[in-house]
Amino acid sequence: MSDATALPQRDLFDLPEGVVYLDGNSLGPLPRGTAERLSRAVGAEWGAQLVRGWNDAGWIDLPDRVAARIAPLIGAEPGTVAVGDSTSVNLFKVLAAAMALNPERRVILSDAGNFPTDLYIADGICRFRGEGWRVEAKPSEEVEAAIDESVAVLMLTQVDYRTGRRRDMRAVTEKAHAAGAVVIWDLAHSAGAFPVELAACGADFAIGCGYKFLNGGPGAPAFLYVAPRHAATVEPVLSGWMGHAAPFAFDPGYRPGEGVERMKVGTPPILSMTALEDALRLFEGRDLAALETRAQDLCDHFIAAVEARCPGLVLATPRDRAVRGSHVSFRHPEGYAVMQALIAQGVIGDFRAPDILRFGITPLYIGEADLDRAAEVLGEILDSGSWDRPEFHARAKVT
Amino acid sequence: MSDATALPQRDLFDLPEGVVYLDGNSLGPLPRGTAERLSRAVGAEWGAQLVRGWNDAGWIDLPDRVAARIAPLIGAEPGTVAVGDSTSVNLFKVLAAAMALNPERRVILSDAGNFPTDLYIADGICRFRGEGWRVEAKPSEEVEAAIDESVAVLMLTQVDYRTGRRRDMRAVTEKAHAAGAVVIWDLAHSAGAFPVELAACGADFAIGCGYKFLNGGPGAPAFLYVAPRHAATVEPVLSGWMGHAAPFAFDPGYRPGEGVERMKVGTPPILSMTALEDALRLFEGRDLAALETRAQDLCDHFIAAVEARCPGLVLATPRDRAVRGSHVSFRHPEGYAVMQALIAQGVIGDFRAPDILRFGITPLYIGEADLDRAAEVLGEILDSGSWDRPEFHARAKVT
Repeated sequence: MSDATALPQRDLFDLPEGVVYLDGNSLGPLPRGTAERLSRAVGAEWGAQLVRGWNDAGWIDLPDRVAARIAPLIGAEPGTVAVGDSTSVNLFKVLAAAMALNPERRVILSDAGNFPTDLYIADGICRFRGEGWRVEAKPSEEVEAAIDESVAVLMLTQVDYRTGRRRDMRAVTEKAHAAGAVVIWDLAHSAGAFPVELAACGADFAIGCGYKFLNGGPGAPAFLYVAPRHAATVEPVLSGWMGHAAPFAFDPGYRPGEGVERMKVGTPPILSMTALEDALRLFEGRDLAALETRAQDLCDHFIAAVEARCPGLVLATPRDRAVRGSHVSFRHPEGYAVMQALIAQGVIGDFRAPDILRFGITPLYIGEADLDRAAEVLGEILDSGSWDRPEFHARAKVT
Repeated sequence: MSDATALPQRDLFDLPEGVVYLDGNSLGPLPRGTAERLSRAVGAEWGAQLVRGWNDAGWIDLPDRVAARIAPLIGAEPGTVAVGDSTSVNLFKVLAAAMALNPERRVILSDAGNFPTDLYIADGICRFRGEGWRVEAKPSEEVEAAIDESVAVLMLTQVDYRTGRRRDMRAVTEKAHAAGAVVIWDLAHSAGAFPVELAACGADFAIGCGYKFLNGGPGAPAFLYVAPRHAATVEPVLSGWMGHAAPFAFDPGYRPGEGVERMKVGTPPILSMTALEDALRLFEGRDLAALETRAQDLCDHFIAAVEARCPGLVLATPRDRAVRGSHVSFRHPEGYAVMQALIAQGVIGDFRAPDILRFGITPLYIGEADLDRAAEVLGEILDSGSWDRPEFHARAKVT
C-alpha cells in the first residue's frame, strides 16, 4: 500500500461512477468496507451486546485505538493524542491549557484569515476568562512578524483553508518559543494529506479533524495533541468523567487521568467513531512522504491544466510546492455559481467566500485523468457562461 | 402507539432472544429499523452524495430536527433545545451561561451525590473562571435547605443515578428563583422516562442524554435547553461556527445565531445523530403520562417481587412512586459480583459503586413476566451464593 506509483486506488472507496471528487478536504469519501463495519457495530455490537459492548466490543478503548492510528500521521509521540468531540471543542480545551502555561501574558495571536471557528472559539474563551485576555488577529503575512513577548499563545492553522498556503511549522514554532509563546497548530487540512512532524517541530498543542483527509465520515470526531512535556501538568478545563483517572469509581472529586487521557470529556459517539477507526485502515503502512510527493505532482498538473484551459482564472494557491497543502484554489468573482455548475456536471469541489473555487487533491483516489476532465469541464462552463443560470446562483445552506 | 395497555412492545426493538434488559437507563437498546436507517445514511448519503449530503440529505438541519423531536418530551417550548456534543460539554455551556446571569454571586450549589461528571465539570469551570467561583456540594437531603442568596447557580440532576429518587422540579425551581438563583436541571434519567415539564416549572437551563431512555445508541449526542427568556441574550462560551448567525459566510467576527441556535459549536457527528433521530420515532404520538404510570406500576411490581424472593436485599429506591424515576435499586455489599452473575444469566442491569444493583425499567419493552424472571434469577444467585466466583469479582473496565 505504500507504493505511490500504484496510486490512485479509487477502488479503496465507494465512489459514485462518473464523479470526480475534489472535495475530500471538506468531507472524505466512504472507504470501501466501512459500511459493513458500521453495520456490524450497529447490529452485532449495540443490538446484540447492548450495554456490554462497552467492554465486549471494546467501545471504552475506541478513542485510544483511534488516537494510536492518528499519532503516526501527525508525527506525535505515542500517548499524546486524544480523540473525541469536535475540532472547535478541542481547540477550546487546548487554548485553556495553553493560556495556563503563560499566565503573565494576555494575548492569543492568530491569523485574521484563519478558519473562522478558530477565531470565534478564541474570542469566546477570552470573553469568558476575562482579566484582559484578547485575540490579536493579524493579516496572514504579518503574523510571524507580530510574534513578541506579549504573546501568550500563537494559534495557527498550518494550511490556509482558502489558499492552501502551508506555514513552516518548524520555523514558526521555533520563533514563537524564542519569544516565550506557546504554540497551537490546527491540522484540519494537514492530517492525512502529508507527513506532519509535531514532535520534531516542538509543537506544544495541536488539533485536527477526522472527516477531511482522514475520511472518517460526516462530522467524525476530532483529535487533539498535547506535547509530553505538558501532558502531566495540564489542568483540563473540560474536566469530564472520561478524563478522570478512574471514571467508573464514581469518585465525587476530580482526579485527572494519566497524560493526554485527561483531555477526554464525555461519552464519545461510538458509531461515528467506529467509522473513523475503520477509515484509518487506509493509512496503515502508507508512506506519507510518497503520498505528499504524488499530491504535489497532481497539484502542479492541475494548475497547469486549468491555466491552459481557463486563462481567466486567478490562481490563489502558491506555485511553490514547498509551501502549499493538498488543495488548489482559483479566484472567480462568481465563484459560487461556477462551482454549482461544475458540481452539476459531476466535478465536485467547493466554494469559499468571497471568491474561491477550491479543489482538494488526494492521490488516494485522484489521478491525472480526473484532473484533466475537471479542467476541461471548468473550461466549458466558463467559455459558455453556462454557470450564469438562476439555479446556480441560488445559495444552499451549506457551501 | 399511545395506548399503554398495549405495552410492552418488545418488537419495537432488536432485542436478543432470552435477555431481560434492565439497563436501558445506561444504554437503550437498538430500535427496529435504526440499523437500516443508518445503513442508508452511510451508503446512500455519505457514499453517494458525498459532501452534497449537507444540503441534499439535510445533515445541516439534522440537529434541529432532533431537537424538535426531543422538545415535547421534556416540556420545552419550540426552538429552545439544541442537540450535539456530550452531556458533559453541554453542561459546561449552560453553566457558563448561568454564571453570567448572576455575576455578583460566586457559588454553584449542587448535590454531593450528583453524577460525578456534573461535579467535575462544575469544578473545572470554576477553576478556569477564577475570581472566587466555587462549587458547594451538599449531601442530597441538605441541598434544598442550602439554597440562599449566595447561590448563583443551582445545578441538580432530577433523578438520582443511584437511588432513583426524583426531585420536585417545580418546587425546587421556585425556591431557587425566590433566592435569586438560576437553575440547571440534568435530565439524564428523566428524558424519555416520564413527562418532564421544563417550561411549566420555569427551569432556566437543562441538559440531557441521548443514549439512555431515548435509545439513541452508544454515545449518542446530548441536548441542552435554554429558557426563551435567556436565549436571546446568552453569550456562548463555546462560540463555534455552527452557532454563528451565518456559518457559511465565513465572517472573521463571531455573531451569535438566533436563540438557542447559538449553543451549537462544531460539526456534529452525523452518523451517531442519525441513529438518535431515528430512535426518537418511537416517541412520536406516545402518551408519556401513560408511560410513566405503567413504569411506576412495573417498579412497584419489581420491588414486591424482589423483596418476596430476596429478603436480604435492601431497597435503595423510594417506595413512594411520586418521588422516583424509572429505575429501581437495591443494595448488596457484593453488588458488583452479584450483578455479573445476573448478567451471565441474561438478566442485564448494572452496578454503581459502592453497593448498588440498578435496574432500569421501561414499559416499552419490559413487562411483569420479565421482572418476575429477573427476581427469580436474582433469588437463585443469592440463595446459592453462585455470585461468589472469581470471574464475577474480576472488575471490567466499564461497570
